[in-house]
Amino acid sequence: MKVAAIQHACKDTTQKTMEHTASLIRQAAKLGAELVVLQELHCDVYFCQTENVETCGKAEPIPGPQTDFFAALAKEHALVLVGSFFERRASGLYHNTAVVFEKNGDIAGTYRKMHIPDDPGFYEKFYFTPGDKGFTPIQTSVGKLGVLVCWDQWYPEAARLMTLAGADLLLYPTAIGWDTNDSSEEQARQREAWITVQRGHAIANGIPLISVNRVGHETDPSGKSTGIQFWGSSFIVGPQGEFLSEANELDEHILSYDINPKQTEAVRRIWPFLRDRRIDAYGDITSRWLD
Amino acid sequence: MKVAAIQHACKDTTQKTMEHTASLIRQAAKLGAELVVLQELHCDVYFCQTENVETCGKAEPIPGPQTDFFAALAKEHALVLVGSFFERRASGLYHNTAVVFEKNGDIAGTYRKMHIPDDPGFYEKFYFTPGDKGFTPIQTSVGKLGVLVCWDQWYPEAARLMTLAGADLLLYPTAIGWDTNDSSEEQARQREAWITVQRGHAIANGIPLISVNRVGHETDPSGKSTGIQFWGSSFIVGPQGEFLSEANELDEHILSYDINPKQTEAVRRIWPFLRDRRIDAYGDITSRWLD
Repeated sequence: MKVAAIQHACKDTTQKTMEHTASLIRQAAKLGAELVVLQELHCDVYFCQTENVETCGKAEPIPGPQTDFFAALAKEHALVLVGSFFERRASGLYHNTAVVFEKNGDIAGTYRKMHIPDDPGFYEKFYFTPGDKGFTPIQTSVGKLGVLVCWDQWYPEAARLMTLAGADLLLYPTAIGWDTNDSSEEQARQREAWITVQRGHAIANGIPLISVNRVGHETDPSGKSTGIQFWGSSFIVGPQGEFLSEANELDEHILSYDINPKQTEAVRRIWPFLRDRRIDAYGDITSRWLD
Repeated sequence: MKVAAIQHACKDTTQKTMEHTASLIRQAAKLGAELVVLQELHCDVYFCQTENVETCGKAEPIPGPQTDFFAALAKEHALVLVGSFFERRASGLYHNTAVVFEKNGDIAGTYRKMHIPDDPGFYEKFYFTPGDKGFTPIQTSVGKLGVLVCWDQWYPEAARLMTLAGADLLLYPTAIGWDTNDSSEEQARQREAWITVQRGHAIANGIPLISVNRVGHETDPSGKSTGIQFWGSSFIVGPQGEFLSEANELDEHILSYDINPKQTEAVRRIWPFLRDRRIDAYGDITSRWLD
């Protein structure tokens, strides 16, 4: 199965960014991609650098104009497309939502980001209500897609639950970057940890994984910080966590790889982790802390 | 806290191997180690290459002569020592058990390996009854130790449960190696996956981790295979999964590092993963598969 992951920067308007992304999807289609994965909240600069009620005006219902635009691209190029949107579910109720479009342009399913971060420059708890759809893979013509979003990638539970529900692939649209005031050593540790924990999910579950992050520096509208340098580094790994394709930290890139779905079966036979899980002893996972 | 991990090969008798290990513990003590971690089933060659009822004669009660030997070493050098033994709990009931010795030689606690592997050359399900003590860290004078054993290292649930129960460190005594008939590419993928999935546990839980593996080639007594080449590669990582100390694939080695326990607190403040866990949505983790 030929997959592509599109790592890009944002233009100065939503419209220009969407048109730019459309041109990159076109290129991915020319490479033969049957599945194209976009980065988190790809229509815009990362607006969570500040808390501003006006920004909620960017949210759209699903389906809505933005998802219609990408649905048309999926149909035009006859590929399965995974996008990420600021969803307006109701007045005062917003989500960070991934949408999977089928080759005919239909919406195959949606996933609402379950784990919501909040730290300086990433004020997501202000904007996004935590997802309420659980960890359910989305059935498509190219397989069952375990779509998760950014902060979810630090949680082994999310990857495990998608796997147990039959996911064939784990996908992580992402927007993560550096505080430019951090030391280069701290920046290197953060980027490496981000890659490593996700490779760990691929390994623990014997499943291929695609992670897509944006690139570029985006300024802080409040001027309180020096903005975020998004670190790119999108990657595709196989079911042993082995690198299949990698992008760098700075450039726009279309990662492409022909994933062999039979590899999952082969790896799970030599490493039958699922066989030996101690489900009788995992009950406390649903505790906040074992005081 | 000065920690040491002892990676070694086995001698041709249990007695010689134990004496060799004692000399390595003595060296670690001279380096100032307060905590010393030994590899899995360190008193012997890895006897699970074949299924042989006679081998059960090697198992000992705990406490027993082998644990008395290591308890005396812990006391002599006034250090906390983590060993790994073939436990005879009753006639026909054996476990793969880690034992933590306090600085005064007392047994601080034991952990019975929960996840038991079984694949060609690693016939552990024949010998070891799966543990029934759960994932409970062991309180010592140097902190709460989340002791897990080998195959447990592929299970994020085990690391998470130890963390939720207050572990300050994760420790993995291990015996893992290559089928020498595998290609060098496959061997590299396996070793890298083994390291990566454990670093992932450190990252996901914001906790330092020590993994100790044996080295050396051990022949298959049945002659059915070409034996196992244990790949060493013991390592110590910090709470961002960053390497603090690493051993190579071939040589005996005493890894040593002065771990800063305050680093866990610092990392968990910038990456507050524990804050955002969706414990309301993890219930299905206790399912074998979501059919």
